[in-house]
Amino acid sequence: MYRYLSKINKPEDLLNLSFEEIDLLSDEIRRFLIKNISKTGGHLASNLGVVELTLALHTIFDTNKDKIVFDVGHQSYVHKIITGRRDRFSTLRQFNGLSGFPKRNESIHDSFDTGHSSTSISAALGMAIARDISKQNYQVAALIGDGALTGGMALEGLNHLGSSKTDLMVILNDNEMSICKNVGGISNYLCNIRITRTYRKLSKQMIGLMSSVPVIGIKATNAAVKIKDGLKHIVMPGAFFEEMGIKYFGPFDGHDYRSLVKALSEIKKISGPKIVHVITKKGKGYSFAEQNPSSYHGVGSFEVNKGVETSSTLSYSNVAGNALIDLFEKDNKCVAVTAAMTNGTGLDDLKEKFPQRVIDVGIAEGHAVTFAAGMASAGVKPYFAVYSTFLQRAYDQIVHDVALQKLPVTLLVDRAGLVGEDGETHHGILDLGFLNTIPNMMILAPKDKEELESMIRQTHTCDFPVAIRYPRGKAISIESSANDDVFKWESLKKGDDVVILAVGKMVETALHAAKELLQHNISCEVVNARIIKPFDKNFLTSVSQNHSMIYTLEDNTISGGFGSNISKALMDMNYTKTVKNISLPDSFIEHGNVDLLYEKYGLSCERIVERIIKDYNQDKILEEIS
Amino acid sequence: MYRYLSKINKPEDLLNLSFEEIDLLSDEIRRFLIKNISKTGGHLASNLGVVELTLALHTIFDTNKDKIVFDVGHQSYVHKIITGRRDRFSTLRQFNGLSGFPKRNESIHDSFDTGHSSTSISAALGMAIARDISKQNYQVAALIGDGALTGGMALEGLNHLGSSKTDLMVILNDNEMSICKNVGGISNYLCNIRITRTYRKLSKQMIGLMSSVPVIGIKATNAAVKIKDGLKHIVMPGAFFEEMGIKYFGPFDGHDYRSLVKALSEIKKISGPKIVHVITKKGKGYSFAEQNPSSYHGVGSFEVNKGVETSSTLSYSNVAGNALIDLFEKDNKCVAVTAAMTNGTGLDDLKEKFPQRVIDVGIAEGHAVTFAAGMASAGVKPYFAVYSTFLQRAYDQIVHDVALQKLPVTLLVDRAGLVGEDGETHHGILDLGFLNTIPNMMILAPKDKEELESMIRQTHTCDFPVAIRYPRGKAISIESSANDDVFKWESLKKGDDVVILAVGKMVETALHAAKELLQHNISCEVVNARIIKPFDKNFLTSVSQNHSMIYTLEDNTISGGFGSNISKALMDMNYTKTVKNISLPDSFIEHGNVDLLYEKYGLSCERIVERIIKDYNQDKILEEIS
Repeated sequence: MYRYLSKINKPEDLLNLSFEEIDLLSDEIRRFLIKNISKTGGHLASNLGVVELTLALHTIFDTNKDKIVFDVGHQSYVHKIITGRRDRFSTLRQFNGLSGFPKRNESIHDSFDTGHSSTSISAALGMAIARDISKQNYQVAALIGDGALTGGMALEGLNHLGSSKTDLMVILNDNEMSICKNVGGISNYLCNIRITRTYRKLSKQMIGLMSSVPVIGIKATNAAVKIKDGLKHIVMPGAFFEEMGIKYFGPFDGHDYRSLVKALSEIKKISGPKIVHVITKKGKGYSFAEQNPSSYHGVGSFEVNKGVETSSTLSYSNVAGNALIDLFEKDNKCVAVTAAMTNGTGLDDLKEKFPQRVIDVGIAEGHAVTFAAGMASAGVKPYFAVYSTFLQRAYDQIVHDVALQKLPVTLLVDRAGLVGEDGETHHGILDLGFLNTIPNMMILAPKDKEELESMIRQTHTCDFPVAIRYPRGKAISIESSANDDVFKWESLKKGDDVVILAVGKMVETALHAAKELLQHNISCEVVNARIIKPFDKNFLTSVSQNHSMIYTLEDNTISGGFGSNISKALMDMNYTKTVKNISLPDSFIEHGNVDLLYEKYGLSCERIVERIIKDYNQDKILEEIS
Repeated sequence: MYRYLSKINKPEDLLNLSFEEIDLLSDEIRRFLIKNISKTGGHLASNLGVVELTLALHTIFDTNKDKIVFDVGHQSYVHKIITGRRDRFSTLRQFNGLSGFPKRNESIHDSFDTGHSSTSISAALGMAIARDISKQNYQVAALIGDGALTGGMALEGLNHLGSSKTDLMVILNDNEMSICKNVGGISNYLCNIRITRTYRKLSKQMIGLMSSVPVIGIKATNAAVKIKDGLKHIVMPGAFFEEMGIKYFGPFDGHDYRSLVKALSEIKKISGPKIVHVITKKGKGYSFAEQNPSSYHGVGSFEVNKGVETSSTLSYSNVAGNALIDLFEKDNKCVAVTAAMTNGTGLDDLKEKFPQRVIDVGIAEGHAVTFAAGMASAGVKPYFAVYSTFLQRAYDQIVHDVALQKLPVTLLVDRAGLVGEDGETHHGILDLGFLNTIPNMMILAPKDKEELESMIRQTHTCDFPVAIRYPRGKAISIESSANDDVFKWESLKKGDDVVILAVGKMVETALHAAKELLQHNISCEVVNARIIKPFDKNFLTSVSQNHSMIYTLEDNTISGGFGSNISKALMDMNYTKTVKNISLPDSFIEHGNVDLLYEKYGLSCERIVERIIKDYNQDKILEEIS
């Protein structure tokens, strides 16, 4: 079935194929990708777009010694397939299976672990300078998308690269379909280059010219006069990069393997920092994906001949987006900010209704937070909707620009807790820890969708920073207590023997566990600890007086998390009975189905019940002895 | 004495002065600055450089409604002096006195609090868009230095600005003296503009041309051919900015008030995003500072006619730098990274000895960390020396690029704890909290200079990430126990009644307190808790068995800090006696002399002794009652 692909067990095997055979191999790889990802889910469109480019890179570079650093890394599937991981590809993103991102512990061909955006230039520059210092001899390349290029760290990396003398090739993978939809001046700039230039055919003369400034195709006499707007890109297509000291080459057609190999092998010989601008088509070769690349960026399983079907599940992201619609209708000072995640954070409908008041700043979480702080200081009410794991990028901005001035910015912290298949770079399991270190910050976590709505509504007029964290996936409803005041804890089920103080999504689990425990004659109270900072001290005091066994339960690591704070607070209260923290350990958590991960790390209902029964019986024995 | 300055009580008063009088006022302001800062200490050179520019901005903008956002903010003294704070200027940076940075709670003329670098464009863009959304009518300007421009967030801000249509003026304050010493491609680019262009005289014709592309002064026929290297800046001086969609104007002489006012008032009328490139001289008007601007960046008190004298005090920064010299001599794979702080972090001598192996990446902490991770992945051993407060910028990079891959990057966390006069944006009081949330991270804090040397030596071969935190200021020596193993705690003084587990600089204070307590018949053990993560569990267990009153002592906030972790750990150990945490509160700490701040927040020896005596007596009473 895969005549050529079946022969590619290592990148060197590519060298045995003719140009024509490589084209056939490319088709096979696309079929292989579509077939497999339709079952496992994963990043489809981006990988379909980099088939020829990846093959060209592996033709030019020898990753047994050379290093290719992927940015974000969800476009590394083709790389994985041809570096000996084809047979395991059906395990992609599954528990104990292949990761969806490069992993150094998976293969020597993976030079650097990635997941977050805009890291590749910095990491690759580190490798290149390390090579120079240790007088070794290998090539380093960074493959970065046009979206990731607008992240601050990528620009810091370019700036440093431009003043270094080191040999490093940055390959700018410019997704034809998405580029004009990307945000920001740099995107517009790249878009202009694409529009005003036809693909440049490679010739010896051009390679020479490219390293200075090409003047092909226009009359010199006109140049200086008309050198503006689109036209200036004909004279200096890579001015933005050249001005920083980086030689610019391109743009090249990223689906023309033969030309790419020729160009890259010539450019490789040119010393110093250089950037190669390659135009690719996201979703290339699968019509559904070509037509709608953003829907095929990350997908679940689907039927190949039907394409991805829109999910009718209401997610927490949707709930947050809808709650904002209500607020925005009433208060015309509300503004939403997203860092290239309008769809992911559920803001699509809001954006349609209030296009001026939903602002996409591109992949730039640090800027997003300080931008929101600026808006808040000028009297509007900003909501920054962001995945927990990406908010890590803005820690200092939250501290320095929001919290220090006590500005009423609300952080809608989406995808908090375990996210599943995207794995260790994407789980949102540090936010309770890092947000907790920030003075003036309020942290809330709803148990269900109604509470998320309440929290957004009730914090609307808070005159200080608020973070509301909620999980990935389907929004649920839980029967509430009568008390809708989200700034206080609530008891959802009374019980005398033990009490679980549960956070967010874990409240549902705690309720199930309490039900189970009853059948083992353990009466368990369940408290919805919906305000995490400042926690409900009065409630905790009364809990500590009424229970001799307190559990905390959270889908965050233990270090600095909710449980740690409660244990410390109980210590301050001179509580001398048992406190146990159920949480994720102080370690990174691998990828896999969330339920499997809960099971493994003791956060599933079953494991919690087991643990409480064991503790409870042990406690009783100890009591009887004493 | 100050004939003109004495009349300037609000910015509007500037409008009463002629151009000639403004020049005289500028001289007076310089005298005023030098005289005052020579007493209070502070940022001298940067403020001497922006006298005319600040006056011009206040002539063009009305900060009763318009907003000027300072970047970093240490160049805001002239602004403070002419916005009604002249009389309080002698209290600058002192406890309860004026802050050295803009503070919204100090004056309506301060639009945004700053301290860290590269925030101004983001914050100003937020204000501008908030203004547009709320249909208000005022001007917004961001004043940013060429150094701060290379920070990732500034570039994210420019990128967003370039695609917005909003009216915002960025003023690029390009310090003539320092620019060529700054790092990176963007700096080289700005330097080229300066070198290849003479200052442009303003004319009506030019204002028109400037918004497209000026072609003055060269023959059009030559343009396209010679459009490279330096020459291209003549055709498109602001290509870097123009390509991002931001109109570029300049460069202008930042010390020519009259021309500045004319230019800025014309440019103000042009709508949309624009950047004005202004060349200033850091230290202008004070010969010592002009000759050596970096030594006059931030100064202590000095004699005006002698200038700043070099301090002979050995700081912890120097100790770290010297310890690296020893290592670098033995191991040629060691590399040091700094983010524009070679001098501040004590790396000057190291840089002189090993110029290739001390790498300044510019103000770019995020990049610095991932760059170090890239180096570590390629087999060299990187040390990133950075102030605690600035390391906040790299939280995600430490998590995602260093810790996740368990790469042996060592963070030398300088200026940890309270730093004094720079105040709330500069205290390093969150690091124990945010670093503790990161899996795979080791955190150490030396009690004295010998221990800092030991830590650097002993962690040299660790194959995981390490952070070593140490304070600002004079390095001290404390008599040690025999045990030099920095991965274990040590008892420095035995005692039966209470024990203090002290971190870093606080060890010395604890020893003094223990001495005092003896005179009150309280026998106090002092433990040097030099390894904070993972803490010495065995030692803690034995301490908990031998003491019924345990204190933790740290110069970090309580949230997620050392004390919280120890309390939680003791709770896990079922410790039922008293634990008390002495730390900074969960709030931002104002500026002022460190000893005054220790006193205020209960970290001075006297306050600690008081507290322990009180607790101890209370405990005894309780014991007697029960």
